Amino acid sequence: MSNRLFNFCAGPAALPEAVLQQAQTELLDWQGKGLSVMEMSHRSEEFTSVAETAEQDLRDLLNIPSNYRVLFLQGGASQQFAQIPLNFMPEDGSADYIDTGIWSAKAIEEAARFGHVNVAASAKAHDYFAIPGQNDWQLSDAASYVHYTPNETIGGLEFGWIPEVGDTPLIADMSSTILSRPLDVSKFGMIYAGAQKNIGPSGLVVVIVREDLLGAARASCPTMLDYAVAAKNGSMYNTPPTFGWYLAGLIFKWLKEQGGLEAMERINKVKQQTLYRAIDNSELYSNPINPADRSWMNVPFRLADDRLDKLFLAGAEERGLLNLKGHRSVGGMRASIYNAVTQQAVDALVAYMAEFEKQQG
Amino acid sequence: MSNRLFNFCAGPAALPEAVLQQAQTELLDWQGKGLSVMEMSHRSEEFTSVAETAEQDLRDLLNIPSNYRVLFLQGGASQQFAQIPLNFMPEDGSADYIDTGIWSAKAIEEAARFGHVNVAASAKAHDYFAIPGQNDWQLSDAASYVHYTPNETIGGLEFGWIPEVGDTPLIADMSSTILSRPLDVSKFGMIYAGAQKNIGPSGLVVVIVREDLLGAARASCPTMLDYAVAAKNGSMYNTPPTFGWYLAGLIFKWLKEQGGLEAMERINKVKQQTLYRAIDNSELYSNPINPADRSWMNVPFRLADDRLDKLFLAGAEERGLLNLKGHRSVGGMRASIYNAVTQQAVDALVAYMAEFEKQQG
Repeated sequence: MSNRLFNFCAGPAALPEAVLQQAQTELLDWQGKGLSVMEMSHRSEEFTSVAETAEQDLRDLLNIPSNYRVLFLQGGASQQFAQIPLNFMPEDGSADYIDTGIWSAKAIEEAARFGHVNVAASAKAHDYFAIPGQNDWQLSDAASYVHYTPNETIGGLEFGWIPEVGDTPLIADMSSTILSRPLDVSKFGMIYAGAQKNIGPSGLVVVIVREDLLGAARASCPTMLDYAVAAKNGSMYNTPPTFGWYLAGLIFKWLKEQGGLEAMERINKVKQQTLYRAIDNSELYSNPINPADRSWMNVPFRLADDRLDKLFLAGAEERGLLNLKGHRSVGGMRASIYNAVTQQAVDALVAYMAEFEKQQG
Repeated sequence: MSNRLFNFCAGPAALPEAVLQQAQTELLDWQGKGLSVMEMSHRSEEFTSVAETAEQDLRDLLNIPSNYRVLFLQGGASQQFAQIPLNFMPEDGSADYIDTGIWSAKAIEEAARFGHVNVAASAKAHDYFAIPGQNDWQLSDAASYVHYTPNETIGGLEFGWIPEVGDTPLIADMSSTILSRPLDVSKFGMIYAGAQKNIGPSGLVVVIVREDLLGAARASCPTMLDYAVAAKNGSMYNTPPTFGWYLAGLIFKWLKEQGGLEAMERINKVKQQTLYRAIDNSELYSNPINPADRSWMNVPFRLADDRLDKLFLAGAEERGLLNLKGHRSVGGMRASIYNAVTQQAVDALVAYMAEFEKQQG
């Protein structure tokens, strides 16, 4: 019955079909209770159970230590860019930021409105095609925290390693890489991720924060932006985005059914290898990123002649390969191959790329 | 096929069954495009059309003048409590607030963190059972705006009139009354409403703001909380809550199909009359609110003997009448009868109330 096509959108991104099917089945009548999960009080026994199960499944998947709190918030990563300094940097304080592309630049720009930002390292010297090695980082003693962006969704640059920053809390925007493989959460002060890539629908942001960092928000921090308030109220200081939280829970269950993050790592590894190999072995396509720093989730590529872009995209759409156009700031193509994008989808893309290249012969 | 019960939840609240059915039908494949509306880029042609149509339908329903902007934001009304002073009150400024119950008190408490709040009138003198008449309001000349809560969701108190505040912008938290009847938007500087009562699912808040008030946010206002930034970017400074926006659009269409807000006014008028009459004509049930100030949407009532509460609620659940328990801060019962709650649901509730009263003899 399914007319579902292959969706390479960078976000809001493809969701697992099985998850959408379950949501569809119970959309008007959740578990025989006579109402939709969207129509329930967030404080009801039923929704509380949905919410707690989702958190526990995420804890299981990421093996989150018990001294970390998991928060289900709103406003996307962009709101976090302000919340982070408001919660962790004193009025006259400073923080270290690593600049690896468009999303880290946005985080830097917003933080600079609230205090001193020390750009401890930048990929600019490498034209944003390679991640600056840790030996070249100029971390500062005064920093309240070190912020970095493990995966740049637009540039297609990804850290294959976790920075060592001593006792300074490490904060990471994991929006487009979280849950793509196992992660040692204990290395971080805080992790945050907009849901609309690997977690669920847009309008939800997940924060994983070390408990001892809470409670030092500035007096000028809006109550809704204070992590300690959210933690104290189980992310229900006010009505949370219940449908997004529910759907995230379904996705966490689905990830467990796939075999957890070890299994996702194996699957995602093959997917990205398939695609990068196809790019590297062609005359027509290219990806500029230093091979060791290539993203597993967002694969930008260019055609040797950008006058072919439109033709490539039109042919892709005809074959049911959607949303391959690159970000407007970069041009070219981008295939986002998140957890819900299957090997079958990647194989179909690679087959089309070969076919198209042959046609151009 | 429907096992749908009658849902009197205060929020997240009942949604129209026809809307849920449409969402269900197209959940995996929106309009034959091969993907869910949740899986689309917010900047795609398809979603842009969803978003713009929703805004236009809301403009049609409320007859919103062209010098007002409509914003689709996140964080609920509670985040607005901070955004309002951050956008409209200078650092050393002040604003007038009207205190009519728990939600206005929360707005006051948060605003007081950002400047001077003059409580120009309070329902406290009436034990929060009546709205203070405008003749008793002590508005101040220095106020940047006047804030009030047209409907108190918990107390069950509603303004049947719009305050006259001269040239000072009037700001209203319409979360639990918006779209229940026609409204003269031109009387307001800004209206805001959490979606999860009469607009859609939780995680979305709609703001209607007069254009000339934009652009004066404090330097310390987070970018994501600046209405001018949201307005300039068509509520897409970052990824908006796309599914909530889509569902709100379906509800706006459904309201038009019902005959618009004039029709909803007629329907809602009869619904509340049915319920208040049943309360007033009984020996067992009572509602303490001054009749002229009774809410059309949230009807709290008590049983003469609160030891009967549990029995009443158990019997209600047996008959498929859900979520009648009053807010924990007030006790007793509360029936929220928003737009999606039908006359049939109210009739079923009233019939059960009579049956229960008879049983108690």
